[in-house]
Amino acid sequence: MSVSSALAYAVKHEPRFVDELKSLLRIPSVSTDPAYAGEVRRAAVWIADHLHEIGIDEVQIHATEGHPIVTAAHMHDAQRPTVLVYGHYDVQPPDPLDLWETPPFEPTERGGRLFARGASDDKGQLFMHAKAAESWLRTAGELPVNLKFLIEGEEESGSVHLRPFLEAHQERLAADVALISDTALFAEGLPSIGYGLRGMAYVEVILDGPNRDLHSGVYGGAVENPIHALTRLIAGLHDEQGRVTLSGFYDAVRDLDDEEREAFRSLPFDEAAWKRDIGISAARTEEGYSVLEATCGRPALDVNGIGGGYQGEGAKTVLPSRAGAKISVRLVPDQRPNEVAAMLRRYFTKETPPTMKLTFRDLHGGMPVLVDRSLPAMQAAFRALRDEFGRQPVFIREGGSIPVVADFQEVLGLDTVLMGFGLDSDAIHSPNEHFGLDRFCQGIASSIRFMKEFAATG
Amino acid sequence: MSVSSALAYAVKHEPRFVDELKSLLRIPSVSTDPAYAGEVRRAAVWIADHLHEIGIDEVQIHATEGHPIVTAAHMHDAQRPTVLVYGHYDVQPPDPLDLWETPPFEPTERGGRLFARGASDDKGQLFMHAKAAESWLRTAGELPVNLKFLIEGEEESGSVHLRPFLEAHQERLAADVALISDTALFAEGLPSIGYGLRGMAYVEVILDGPNRDLHSGVYGGAVENPIHALTRLIAGLHDEQGRVTLSGFYDAVRDLDDEEREAFRSLPFDEAAWKRDIGISAARTEEGYSVLEATCGRPALDVNGIGGGYQGEGAKTVLPSRAGAKISVRLVPDQRPNEVAAMLRRYFTKETPPTMKLTFRDLHGGMPVLVDRSLPAMQAAFRALRDEFGRQPVFIREGGSIPVVADFQEVLGLDTVLMGFGLDSDAIHSPNEHFGLDRFCQGIASSIRFMKEFAATG
Repeated sequence: MSVSSALAYAVKHEPRFVDELKSLLRIPSVSTDPAYAGEVRRAAVWIADHLHEIGIDEVQIHATEGHPIVTAAHMHDAQRPTVLVYGHYDVQPPDPLDLWETPPFEPTERGGRLFARGASDDKGQLFMHAKAAESWLRTAGELPVNLKFLIEGEEESGSVHLRPFLEAHQERLAADVALISDTALFAEGLPSIGYGLRGMAYVEVILDGPNRDLHSGVYGGAVENPIHALTRLIAGLHDEQGRVTLSGFYDAVRDLDDEEREAFRSLPFDEAAWKRDIGISAARTEEGYSVLEATCGRPALDVNGIGGGYQGEGAKTVLPSRAGAKISVRLVPDQRPNEVAAMLRRYFTKETPPTMKLTFRDLHGGMPVLVDRSLPAMQAAFRALRDEFGRQPVFIREGGSIPVVADFQEVLGLDTVLMGFGLDSDAIHSPNEHFGLDRFCQGIASSIRFMKEFAATG
Repeated sequence: MSVSSALAYAVKHEPRFVDELKSLLRIPSVSTDPAYAGEVRRAAVWIADHLHEIGIDEVQIHATEGHPIVTAAHMHDAQRPTVLVYGHYDVQPPDPLDLWETPPFEPTERGGRLFARGASDDKGQLFMHAKAAESWLRTAGELPVNLKFLIEGEEESGSVHLRPFLEAHQERLAADVALISDTALFAEGLPSIGYGLRGMAYVEVILDGPNRDLHSGVYGGAVENPIHALTRLIAGLHDEQGRVTLSGFYDAVRDLDDEEREAFRSLPFDEAAWKRDIGISAARTEEGYSVLEATCGRPALDVNGIGGGYQGEGAKTVLPSRAGAKISVRLVPDQRPNEVAAMLRRYFTKETPPTMKLTFRDLHGGMPVLVDRSLPAMQAAFRALRDEFGRQPVFIREGGSIPVVADFQEVLGLDTVLMGFGLDSDAIHSPNEHFGLDRFCQGIASSIRFMKEFAATG
């Protein structure tokens, strides 16, 4: 089993790989829009057929109450470790259409980049692993690892049927590690491995005061205004150092270690460009932490929405009966969503004035993720990327959440290697989404190398 | 000129007076709905014709860019004082129609009450003064005072053309005092004279942070959230004693004097019933002031609306680019709207964090009103009501604003006697609006008496 043969095969067949990817990209598998349900199903069938064609056996299309889930498995040697590749074949809606330079579902190459909806997110990245498997199978006749695929069609519409599917198919999905390419390089040309994701606790609070909107002239001065109470409570959630004031909030927070902080510092982060991009004059972080540390390695509480009283044009003199807010907390290990939601509940319950009725809703939560960078799979990914890019990869933490990663951990007991080849400039979810063909090839090669490296750790 | 003859005339002709009022109430003069423009005009013509019929000369219908304004004058003796009666012939929309027990524009008597849209607000109350004038003219052949009418058709839609009209017709409207019956008795059977109204300063503040809504996972923890900043600023507007913290806010506030506070205490106010009605367990006033004092005699700052970020169903993880609020302050003498708006502007300008851009809009304002209770016209009203009701009237202050009263003061230099005969239970602006026929008759008699009493002070 020679890596170099597999790599050479991939180089040789690149034009065909790109053509095949274009076929997949031509299918408008927009999962949020019921009008595209047939196209979403067509994409599932295309992927299933393709995996079967390249020699992956046990391909199945599973119906759900929503869009189908495709699984595949190539289990040729029980002694070898098993990798579960996750990806999604559905895409974001292409609107606004008039801002696309070429039609979103007519893949077009320009300047070494392939423009199409889904080119980067996630058809292009998902397809790399299929092509890596093909490169091994066509040259060595077998794979260095056992390989499974789990490919869903609802990632862009909330993955609502995925977790029940994991719970129902634990044996079918059993593996040693999960591998996902659905994230971005930290910077162009800088190979990156994600090892941390923030979790989330999302709640809604509503304060009800008087039983109806009151005339502020007749009642103003004697009836506590729900907006006043709510703003006071929200203002009380942070102190002047930008820290969250909830009792016990930081008790479970695993602080960044020196090595991580050093790693954050050495990342090529241009804070001035970052500020310019979002149009702010200054960052505001928890005291003592840099922008990257604060967004990736520290918890953050944000009010995502607030509303109450009159919000139309002009003036209306109402003392409103109700005000409400949506509040989310991004969590880091070892915070737990239910515990943080409970802290919020206690705070609002305690601080709501006696003139108000509190409604507190725990909307949803997700566990934070931190994968041990010394795990064999992580080190295998490190070597694979290093050898492919010719430079040291960086381990990075992400500020957002990828729910499937926490689900893999909780339901399947699987750690995940996040080995993404996107760029923040790929315009995923926007017009003119694209994927660099150089990265497509690097991704295939990295996947080929990873299988070999991971097999060697088994 | 005998009061008793005029009063006897009014008693004798009451059935006809009610019939005439019903004719006026049958006209659906809904000023906010352009579909009713013809009916609004018909009501103006009806009133003008009626004033002419009872012997008021110089009746005129003035076109405006909106609905017409009716003026009339009966100037028979330059030695006598002049009273300007203000009222409005337009009405609120009748919706929701299915909650009316009898149709809103088919006036119906039930249990001594006349049910119809406008019965109390303000056709019924306005018409009392016409009938008082008729009672004098048909018995004494003249009025004790010179009498003018100013009757608009846009009170329920903002009175947008009234102030320019006052400015353009100062001479035509010149008088010694204004008389308005468009308010309520403090309690059933308790004759009440309004001498105070709160003014208003209404502003809007908007905080803009990042140049677009951001992903709260990617940016949360390093970008100041406009909702957080806004809630902090709003929370800072009040202290724990319920006082407004704006620098200098109370400097111009004329505090309630001992006599006024004693008068407030002696009013028959049932705080338990008041709380029950609006569904709150406790009032919250500026420390040291009762509910009535706080709502009628002290300033109050209320946020009338707040909004920012995601307010739909469920969860959206956005760090919003903008948050805004509408804020109004009810003013008491000698606060001035422009000065209080300037205080708010200074506060928000100073406290807005450097990461945000502030937009501050001064939406509108109105002067507070306090009429000297010792004025001849106020004392004349006091005697008129005392003699009619057989008990001591009360002087009351209202928490709301009646812009025309401040306009009369500012444009015409006129004090206003607020002599209203409504009740809070009249359901003005609601289905089944009604006016007690007893109060209709008491209003006519009180107006008859007032003219005589006021003439005697001349």
